Amino acid sequence: MKAASAFVVESPDVVYSPETIEAHYDYRTTRVIREGGVLKVQPTSTRFTFRTARQVPRLGVMLVGWGGNNGSTLTAAVLANRLRLSWPTRAGRKEANYYGSLTQSGTVSLGLDAEGQEVFVPFNALLPMVAPDDLVFDGWDISSLNLAEAMRRAQVLDCGLQEQLWPHMEALRPRPSVYIPEFIAANQSARANNLIPGTRAQQLEQIRKDIRDFRHREELDKVIVLWTANTERFCDVVQGLNDTAENLLCTIQNTLVPGALELAEQHRVFVGGDDFKSGQTKVKSVLVDFLISSGLKTMSIVSYNHLGNNDGQNLSAPQQFRSKEVSKSSVVDDMVQSNPVLYALGEEPDHCVVIKYVPYVGDSKRALDEYTSELMLGGTNTLVLHNTCEKGVAPVAPNGCTGDTNGHPQGASPMPMA
Amino acid sequence: MKAASAFVVESPDVVYSPETIEAHYDYRTTRVIREGGVLKVQPTSTRFTFRTARQVPRLGVMLVGWGGNNGSTLTAAVLANRLRLSWPTRAGRKEANYYGSLTQSGTVSLGLDAEGQEVFVPFNALLPMVAPDDLVFDGWDISSLNLAEAMRRAQVLDCGLQEQLWPHMEALRPRPSVYIPEFIAANQSARANNLIPGTRAQQLEQIRKDIRDFRHREELDKVIVLWTANTERFCDVVQGLNDTAENLLCTIQNTLVPGALELAEQHRVFVGGDDFKSGQTKVKSVLVDFLISSGLKTMSIVSYNHLGNNDGQNLSAPQQFRSKEVSKSSVVDDMVQSNPVLYALGEEPDHCVVIKYVPYVGDSKRALDEYTSELMLGGTNTLVLHNTCEKGVAPVAPNGCTGDTNGHPQGASPMPMA
Amino acid sequence: MKAASAFVVESPDVVYSPETIEAHYDYRTTRVIREGGVLKVQPTSTRFTFRTARQVPRLGVMLVGWGGNNGSTLTAAVLANRLRLSWPTRAGRKEANYYGSLTQSGTVSLGLDAEGQEVFVPFNALLPMVAPDDLVFDGWDISSLNLAEAMRRAQVLDCGLQEQLWPHMEALRPRPSVYIPEFIAANQSARANNLIPGTRAQQLEQIRKDIRDFRHREELDKVIVLWTANTERFCDVVQGLNDTAENLLCTIQNTLVPGALELAEQHRVFVGGDDFKSGQTKVKSVLVDFLISSGLKTMSIVSYNHLGNNDGQNLSAPQQFRSKEVSKSSVVDDMVQSNPVLYALGEEPDHCVVIKYVPYVGDSKRALDEYTSELMLGGTNTLVLHNTCEKGVAPVAPNGCTGDTNGHPQGASPMPMA
Amino acid sequence: MKAASAFVVESPDVVYSPETIEAHYDYRTTRVIREGGVLKVQPTSTRFTFRTARQVPRLGVMLVGWGGNNGSTLTAAVLANRLRLSWPTRAGRKEANYYGSLTQSGTVSLGLDAEGQEVFVPFNALLPMVAPDDLVFDGWDISSLNLAEAMRRAQVLDCGLQEQLWPHMEALRPRPSVYIPEFIAANQSARANNLIPGTRAQQLEQIRKDIRDFRHREELDKVIVLWTANTERFCDVVQGLNDTAENLLCTIQNTLVPGALELAEQHRVFVGGDDFKSGQTKVKSVLVDFLISSGLKTMSIVSYNHLGNNDGQNLSAPQQFRSKEVSKSSVVDDMVQSNPVLYALGEEPDHCVVIKYVPYVGDSKRALDEYTSELMLGGTNTLVLHNTCEKGVAPVAPNGCTGDTNGHPQGASPMPMA
Repeated sequence: MKAASAFVVESPDVVYSPETIEAHYDYRTTRVIREGGVLKVQPTSTRFTFRTARQVPRLGVMLVGWGGNNGSTLTAAVLANRLRLSWPTRAGRKEANYYGSLTQSGTVSLGLDAEGQEVFVPFNALLPMVAPDDLVFDGWDISSLNLAEAMRRAQVLDCGLQEQLWPHMEALRPRPSVYIPEFIAANQSARANNLIPGTRAQQLEQIRKDIRDFRHREELDKVIVLWTANTERFCDVVQGLNDTAENLLCTIQNTLVPGALELAEQHRVFVGGDDFKSGQTKVKSVLVDFLISSGLKTMSIVSYNHLGNNDGQNLSAPQQFRSKEVSKSSVVDDMVQSNPVLYALGEEPDHCVVIKYVPYVGDSKRALDEYTSELMLGGTNTLVLHNTCEKGVAPVAPNGCTGDTNGHPQGASPMPMA
Repeated sequence: MKAASAFVVESPDVVYSPETIEAHYDYRTTRVIREGGVLKVQPTSTRFTFRTARQVPRLGVMLVGWGGNNGSTLTAAVLANRLRLSWPTRAGRKEANYYGSLTQSGTVSLGLDAEGQEVFVPFNALLPMVAPDDLVFDGWDISSLNLAEAMRRAQVLDCGLQEQLWPHMEALRPRPSVYIPEFIAANQSARANNLIPGTRAQQLEQIRKDIRDFRHREELDKVIVLWTANTERFCDVVQGLNDTAENLLCTIQNTLVPGALELAEQHRVFVGGDDFKSGQTKVKSVLVDFLISSGLKTMSIVSYNHLGNNDGQNLSAPQQFRSKEVSKSSVVDDMVQSNPVLYALGEEPDHCVVIKYVPYVGDSKRALDEYTSELMLGGTNTLVLHNTCEKGVAPVAPNGCTGDTNGHPQGASPMPMA
Repeated sequence: MKAASAFVVESPDVVYSPETIEAHYDYRTTRVIREGGVLKVQPTSTRFTFRTARQVPRLGVMLVGWGGNNGSTLTAAVLANRLRLSWPTRAGRKEANYYGSLTQSGTVSLGLDAEGQEVFVPFNALLPMVAPDDLVFDGWDISSLNLAEAMRRAQVLDCGLQEQLWPHMEALRPRPSVYIPEFIAANQSARANNLIPGTRAQQLEQIRKDIRDFRHREELDKVIVLWTANTERFCDVVQGLNDTAENLLCTIQNTLVPGALELAEQHRVFVGGDDFKSGQTKVKSVLVDFLISSGLKTMSIVSYNHLGNNDGQNLSAPQQFRSKEVSKSSVVDDMVQSNPVLYALGEEPDHCVVIKYVPYVGDSKRALDEYTSELMLGGTNTLVLHNTCEKGVAPVAPNGCTGDTNGHPQGASPMPMA
Repeated sequence: MKAASAFVVESPDVVYSPETIEAHYDYRTTRVIREGGVLKVQPTSTRFTFRTARQVPRLGVMLVGWGGNNGSTLTAAVLANRLRLSWPTRAGRKEANYYGSLTQSGTVSLGLDAEGQEVFVPFNALLPMVAPDDLVFDGWDISSLNLAEAMRRAQVLDCGLQEQLWPHMEALRPRPSVYIPEFIAANQSARANNLIPGTRAQQLEQIRKDIRDFRHREELDKVIVLWTANTERFCDVVQGLNDTAENLLCTIQNTLVPGALELAEQHRVFVGGDDFKSGQTKVKSVLVDFLISSGLKTMSIVSYNHLGNNDGQNLSAPQQFRSKEVSKSSVVDDMVQSNPVLYALGEEPDHCVVIKYVPYVGDSKRALDEYTSELMLGGTNTLVLHNTCEKGVAPVAPNGCTGDTNGHPQGASPMPMA
């Protein structure tokens, strides 16, 4: 079956104009009311109108940590696809593709055709979307290596591909960035040779200037800033510091504290979530969802990870690991809370997450997990996984097993900085 | 959070009477029309009315292969729960439960409460359902062992539990059954000492008589017949034999051939599917769904299984394995067909399924799987699983890791035999 | 082939008398001399005389930490074998055995018979040895539970076996012991209700008195003291404290410091080694030996362990883990140093050892290892292991997968304390 | 520690002359005599004299199946080492080496030096040995591809290495060979385009002529013929056909039947064994040796393999797999027979070996094993392995994880054919 690339919705709820597609949608769900020990369930309906511009914007992407493994690989991936590169490997020539991208390689079911067969379209055919080939990249890095050198240091891509990309990547050079040793691991200081001078306030002003400069120079309609730098240390919420949008703007920072959420709401900006992607953690959420939804009582989850890239080194510092541990541990909570039949209030499985730095394995992330669940009448199910993720990056949508089990932002920056 | 046990729907679409709950539901989906290379998508809506009796019936369950590991364990599980048994194990006393049952241990989200918190109720609180404790069991088996002896042979349950169940199980004795060596493996003949004499027609008449007898003796409102016997050999569709309901009734058989489906439609009977449950195969469907939905191109799936119970021995015969292989292989097809971006027409991953009989492991099923998927730019993801399923049966709903990775019926019998 | 149980050596080098077996043995090896860049190899021969008493002694064993999982299981194992117990399990009756014991279940090749077939005898047929059934047990523990209660707490043995052992174990009660919170993890204080009062010197005197008392009461010829308590914290060598036998006797302690070795030599006492047994670590030594001996260059070894017994809790304290980490890491060093072709001076594989406390898995130790080795021309071999060790103890000889992946003594006490 | 490269033995038992090294060695062992239920053990000693030429011969190697993955990779490996090639990979430049070769990368302990330190020398320093760099290659193949093309088809080596080797490999072209479809899998016929015409007798004569031709043309002192072609079908011993050396020479064949052994003895030629090397099987022999020697009773061994190269395809034919299965199964027998304490006469573990053809994984062999062993008192140890062997060949000595888990010769040809 060939993926259809275009379709028209024939419905009074969908109106096409030359500029926009306007869709009305009734979102039906239920409201639950507790009245004297009885639950009352009432249907509710909300009418949404979605208006989508048919002309996609010229879009720039600025990466924090552009020269890291993720940043350099993402940039290389878009270039390789745009240039339709292919390169030799011992298993034959490989062609650039967007495997692992929800929008480029994922599909959506449109419905049934006359023969009762499901019709699937590529995810990116659903609505007008910017093609990743058209993205314009820029970014910051505390290391001054140009993107070609960064790509070589990352040791992610095949040599034959690196060779072809070299002249294109060489011209790309990260802007100076901000390095605060207390926030990322001290072991990163050897890389830090490309820094913005001055006070924090001056540094902030430079960052804002960089964004305006990029937008203007490249004649962009929009700029997205993505965190792909090292995991920062864990950040407590402090009253008067990062609890409100107003306080946040005085102290300026990039973690997903309440003030950042409030600010995003004020400016009607999306918060992209607090993790660029996911490998083992995503598989865990899928499996725990399956196990508990099946009525099995998962009793222990033990997750061991090791990797040898720069993120691994950064995470070998306790404070950075703490931040990662929090994000990795919480993935189970929702599922446990969804099943009060299996888990009493406050009860939860043993859950242990370990990340170790093992230089030899490089960017080939390894994850070893063990799930033990109780079955009826004292039976147990033990599921053991070993996952090897040899390089690879999901370019646009955060999903699958990507180059970044580790580049964990505590928040995509939603601040209207420029 | 405690699971709420009852709720009321306040909606004009739901009407409660003393006898029934009547619900109207608009099922909205889309129809796709291909017109000159263009896909047209039209919304459709179908109004369903669901009427559910508030008084649950007195329900009998007849198992084909009652004395097998599944049949004896399912019966024991219901008894242990009904009698609220507990028994000592080296890790402390265990209590009977229904872990692994969708209806008894699964939950459903009702909606959000006033604080925006999701409210979950047990699955069995959704609508009036028969409690598994109230099921009445009967069945057939080619082996004459009573259910207590069958339980001991199965080696599934802890000794301390078996001891308490013994007097209750001892009185249960399977009815004589039909043994056709060509349909299940010849290695089963040693068990076959409890057979209905006579011609095929006489045997059929006895089976029908058994069902009527059970219903009458136990004063049952309904009887469900479940196949939990060995996997039968693979069955081709033969014109004039099993292609229509009419032909089927002349030749009578229990596999899910087109005639059986037609007959079920004529009598408005549900077809329960073609597999009692699933262990490795279910995990595979979850993982392949995740991988391909994420845009990863899964290239090879290798699944090795071994087990040491009677099903393992039966499946060591090639024709029975063929039948199992078909059901286990097809699980990937839907996902591959859903993504024409990744897979060209006719392209599919290497997929290999092996089942071996290893007596020592007994009813502890082992599954070893390897999934290899391609990432962007030539990267690969290799996921290796080892799954140990120590005994256990999901009693009512077919799900989770149950005692039967193997007792694969080609069809739950939908025939109005009595 | 049946294991022969007795044999006679007919050789002028072996002389049997009613009391002893006296054997002369020439140990031939080589001496290497470095002379001006050239290695000279000279054969050497040393004549040993081994005299073995034919009458085995009445032997007592005192366990430090008698009430722990190891101590209680070892005692139970000897009792179960001595009493020839059998007990029901769901997989049939089990009989007491000494599987996992080098001396009781291991064999040795005697040589070839007239038909050129190898003849094997049980290890314990080689020379007169004390049968484990004849051992007399006693010991100390900081917890006052009697051995029956300790066995139940350990959750290691099947219920049916525990029941039969109970009256025999109940009468066994550990002597009060010494608890110094700084030396084992603080999380052990909840157990410490059975302590010797007084100063360190008074405690030492009581320990010596206990040994004399045990020997006298049971009319023993010899007493062996075995450490099976928690791993102590890592111990540095301090001049004037534990560096010589003389200093050690003033400060008295039980770790394998140089002073302890010197003292053992002075008294011609064997030092039993610094680890009671081995599970994952033993497998690692076998595999690394195999890999490097085969000329493969092992580049990374990552070992994850988790367990849920009291040792796991003790090891969750950093100082105790440090001690364990040292003993677990050194296993690779010898092999690396044995191959200067593969490893340059100072070069070694990445080696990472993690031990986590996961209460749910109890005494079922889990080990996940990953070995990555380089092959010729850039190929790699990745070996991943998952090892589940469900209870079990090797009673006499330290080997196999035993109940104690964790009860790591830093030294069997060689001190002539009584 | 640097590996010493040369040494001198100073002993009256070792005499160096300009041409030879002559060593006398007393091999001491024991003889066992059964006399009336008593075993008598008598020491024996045999004096051997080993004379080794100090001048290594000019040595040719002829490979049966030269153009296969093993043959082409072995040839490439020797060339890459001889030419001291290095090539780029994404993880940096790699240099040619002999990792995985017992003789080139293995070491041997010479003895202790004056400081009590063990002194290790490379295995190949023990006695004069031909360096693999000096080997001269030739061989036969049923496919006419030259060695460069064969190397590309094999997809084993990195592109950058292949590129440099191409001109050297291109000139090497296998001699026509013999293809008897009944002996290797019919699925190999597509490759068979390079065949010796004529009757079997004429084909044999041509093979003999090839050996003489190679020896003469290259001025070789010795020629070794190695089987590295596909696994042949299982071969029964037939009286009058392959039971004696005489019969064998009339019917001529290359499997390790009794006649071949007799012929080898008559000509004082070594029989190299019946398997070129081993991956999973070697690991199994190491682990089973360890487990049973430790007194653990291994109860089930389940070994699953899959691979995607031509050997995998050949082995997907039942008769070829049978041959492999026999060789893979027997590895456990010796260990089981060595321990009559654990295994009664005739008792053995469940042992199951599966090999599947999964094209996608190519020459990356995957092995999944599960070992279950019984511990004392009903405990069990379950060891699960996943082994990935990414290409690689052990060039001279058969060991380690090599390119040929599959190219199983039933016998290296010991026949004095030329």
